[in-house]
Amino acid sequence: MDVHTVAAGVTIEDVVAAHRADLRTQAPYDVRYLRYWFDESRGRIFCLAEAPSADAAIAVHRQAHGLVADEVFQVQEGS
Amino acid sequence: MDVHTVAAGVTIEDVVAAHRADLRTQAPYDVRYLRYWFDESRGRIFCLAEAPSADAAIAVHRQAHGLVADEVFQVQEGS
Repeated sequence: MDVHTVAAGVTIEDVVAAHRADLRTQAPYDVRYLRYWFDESRGRIFCLAEAPSADAAIAVHRQAHGLVADEVFQVQEGS
Repeated sequence: MDVHTVAAGVTIEDVVAAHRADLRTQAPYDVRYLRYWFDESRGRIFCLAEAPSADAAIAVHRQAHGLVADEVFQVQEGS
């Protein structure tokens, strides 16, 4: 799970476009960006990905659109 | 999406127990805690819920186990 803090004025359309770029970019990194959530009023994005490492997930964001997350957490999902 | 920062030593079993308490507690608040993710090494929990308000989601955590989140974000999911 990564967390981005983004500037005021970033819209859901911007986030959708960035996510699509992630999807086009991720395969060579063995990363799968799965879901994402956006708080437009507070400028926060959460991206859930399966990745062999945090660095791999970061590399996808960097290549796809350059908007790397502020923090990356290596999470397990509860059940 | 809420974010909890928890002390070292908190385990996935602790988080599972807290989530189950949320599930038992949420109905009168019209809240549904859906999924959650835990970074044990960094002590961070992310909880995704559907709720009529942030306050309603907070109230469930408070009644269920008292462990309220540090931050609550009103997110929309991207597609």
